[in-house]
Amino acid sequence: MLYRLEQLTLSPAGHLSWGGCDAVELAAAFGTPLYVVDEEQVRERCRQYRSAADRYLGDAEVHYAGKAFLNIAMCQLVEEEELGLDVVSGGELYTALKAGFPADRIILHGSNKSQQELEMALEAGVRIVVDSLSELELLEELVSQGRRARVLLRYTPGVRAGTHRFIETGVADSKFGLPSLDACLEAVGRCLDNPAVSLDGLHCHIGSQIVNVAPFAEATEILTGLLGEVKRRFGAELPLLNLGGGLGVRYRPGDRVPSVDEYLAGLGAVIRASLDREGLKPPRVIIEPGRSIVAEAGITLYRAGVAKEIPGVRRYVSVDGGLPDNPRPALYGAEYHAILANRPRERAELTYTVAGKTCESGDIIIREVNLPEVHRGDLVAVFATGAYNYSMASNYNRLPRPGVVFVRNGHARWVVARETYDDLVARDLPL
Amino acid sequence: MLYRLEQLTLSPAGHLSWGGCDAVELAAAFGTPLYVVDEEQVRERCRQYRSAADRYLGDAEVHYAGKAFLNIAMCQLVEEEELGLDVVSGGELYTALKAGFPADRIILHGSNKSQQELEMALEAGVRIVVDSLSELELLEELVSQGRRARVLLRYTPGVRAGTHRFIETGVADSKFGLPSLDACLEAVGRCLDNPAVSLDGLHCHIGSQIVNVAPFAEATEILTGLLGEVKRRFGAELPLLNLGGGLGVRYRPGDRVPSVDEYLAGLGAVIRASLDREGLKPPRVIIEPGRSIVAEAGITLYRAGVAKEIPGVRRYVSVDGGLPDNPRPALYGAEYHAILANRPRERAELTYTVAGKTCESGDIIIREVNLPEVHRGDLVAVFATGAYNYSMASNYNRLPRPGVVFVRNGHARWVVARETYDDLVARDLPL
Repeated sequence: MLYRLEQLTLSPAGHLSWGGCDAVELAAAFGTPLYVVDEEQVRERCRQYRSAADRYLGDAEVHYAGKAFLNIAMCQLVEEEELGLDVVSGGELYTALKAGFPADRIILHGSNKSQQELEMALEAGVRIVVDSLSELELLEELVSQGRRARVLLRYTPGVRAGTHRFIETGVADSKFGLPSLDACLEAVGRCLDNPAVSLDGLHCHIGSQIVNVAPFAEATEILTGLLGEVKRRFGAELPLLNLGGGLGVRYRPGDRVPSVDEYLAGLGAVIRASLDREGLKPPRVIIEPGRSIVAEAGITLYRAGVAKEIPGVRRYVSVDGGLPDNPRPALYGAEYHAILANRPRERAELTYTVAGKTCESGDIIIREVNLPEVHRGDLVAVFATGAYNYSMASNYNRLPRPGVVFVRNGHARWVVARETYDDLVARDLPL
Repeated sequence: MLYRLEQLTLSPAGHLSWGGCDAVELAAAFGTPLYVVDEEQVRERCRQYRSAADRYLGDAEVHYAGKAFLNIAMCQLVEEEELGLDVVSGGELYTALKAGFPADRIILHGSNKSQQELEMALEAGVRIVVDSLSELELLEELVSQGRRARVLLRYTPGVRAGTHRFIETGVADSKFGLPSLDACLEAVGRCLDNPAVSLDGLHCHIGSQIVNVAPFAEATEILTGLLGEVKRRFGAELPLLNLGGGLGVRYRPGDRVPSVDEYLAGLGAVIRASLDREGLKPPRVIIEPGRSIVAEAGITLYRAGVAKEIPGVRRYVSVDGGLPDNPRPALYGAEYHAILANRPRERAELTYTVAGKTCESGDIIIREVNLPEVHRGDLVAVFATGAYNYSMASNYNRLPRPGVVFVRNGHARWVVARETYDDLVARDLPL
């Protein structure tokens, strides 16, 4: 979905259609702002990943990284599509278990898991990615009480996803992961020595919104090298190689990213070459896409309100959401694309700044986008909001958070209900 | 409160004391992360503002700008301290009305109020700050149905709070306010001509976290000049001059900001001089502090988890909250100060990066702060989190949002209950 008119589907009424549903009708039925996710697109991405993993990675697991977008319905969809699920907190794990997601297909990540979260994971039988020696100590204490842990160890390979080069020291300045070869080998040794700990393998994750294959290949080489070192040092061939996620998505019409096939074909080639070099049996590979499963399947529908031209300076249109439902422009300078969903065929001949509703000068959703002349009541569709919008949403300015609607084959339904004013005061107590 | 040991109060046990409560006991009783607000400090700031406004501004109203931190208890506190209240959305207005706040002391702001929000305000009898000609049109339609509106007009004076100079064109690139003299005078004329609209006055707000008086003075001159122009053009002397808020606070030990007295003495002098120059009777002045009422009264208590030294690079300590409960470091590069609340007397001889809990490399609460050697279980107190922390909090990584505790004279109580895992799935619907 590249958001250009010729690539979009229009409804019989000539409006933007998403998942077979007319966007104008969606807004009328469900209100705005509204997160709309094309369920079939998400499923299709899951299947692309599974089929490409089969083709290029051999024995492999695809885990959806839930932090991009997680709720009970999404867990159930992921389960139906036979992916695994990554969670990063007790809250995500709770959601997954509540959705009936099989615990043995869940992996718990996180650089600072609490004791309560680790206990929750041990109780459920979820695999744990150990992030530090400090966490390993805590886990050793917990399993000494009769429980067993299945773990992976997160190593920080020091690959810079932007610049594609190793950090020469071999030491990565990151809050995540075991920061050095020594720390990693110490953790491996302690896990192998502990009968209550089953060391399944190694893990790395080098970043997000990565738009070429090279940094993934570098990280893969480092991690297979580490598997080789573990074999030489401890005589153990670990059964799992978890390469994390991070594939980028297209936020705007001109954006180019590798296809899932290109991404996994590239990974597969590097894995085979490095395993040969290290003389290792092929481990099972895990990859953990999040954003690239859901981002492009999601749009946000906003109602246009105030339009204001400052002559010679800028043309603003304000919409009924913004920073609280999509903090990414303010957080990262993220850029988005939009169209008028009710008049997608009209020539986009004016340049607008799309401003959010909050009393915050930084609440700008799109700094420059071409649109037809916008009037109060027009429907603005912002693309590629399926990831890290709902999951990062706040109640800033005490705006109720939008709900999430799944659309499929012309049918639409809530999967997360819209918040109400009463929800906002539900936890408030009188003075 | 400057956060240096000699200025902090310690409990009999030698821990940080806040509002007469031992921080270690607060964490044990209420859990972490926890927002703790010293109620007496907030009340004291309200009284400082009221007394300085009486002293320097003559006939004046002080309105608390709720977007900094709003909930039912805070509305009630503000009401008890006899301040007015600014709200910026239907959700904030709903909260205020639910708290029993008198509608005639509420002002509704916002650059893109919805029809529903305007109707809610008209219904309640709340004053409305009209932000644009487009909004004025909508309001004119609504009052044509028999309702009456009391309004102020927001003008964008084009003062740059950072550089203290006028924008030469007289046109401000802002999503807020009437952007030019012509637009403002057109709005004034339309309001004066409309028997259903009572034009109470003019409003401006030039920004936030402003640390000297000069830009306030410039904006004041511009706004009084505009009042003079309104008198010359329409023969009307408007009864209200609303100068907004924006006074900065001290986030870190070295920060210097004007006192409330310095701020309002400066404003008062400029107001008198400009009114004289324009030959105007003194209008009632409104000021709208938000951050400077609550920021320094609030701290966040976090439990330390993983501590990790990357030799030669950096020393990290991770805590059990972060970006979701305080997005300001990631959003604005905001800088905070912290101490170990359980060992405040120990020498802070190591430099730490305080990292948040989420799986997000940008989740760093403090890039560099000196602390004693930190161990798992230590209690980290971050200062000056009373404003724009609770109000901007999200559930990113599906972390439940912390609750808010008010402390006063050694007593502590929830004013916003902590979220639970069940709250996270409360609006989720099955696939």
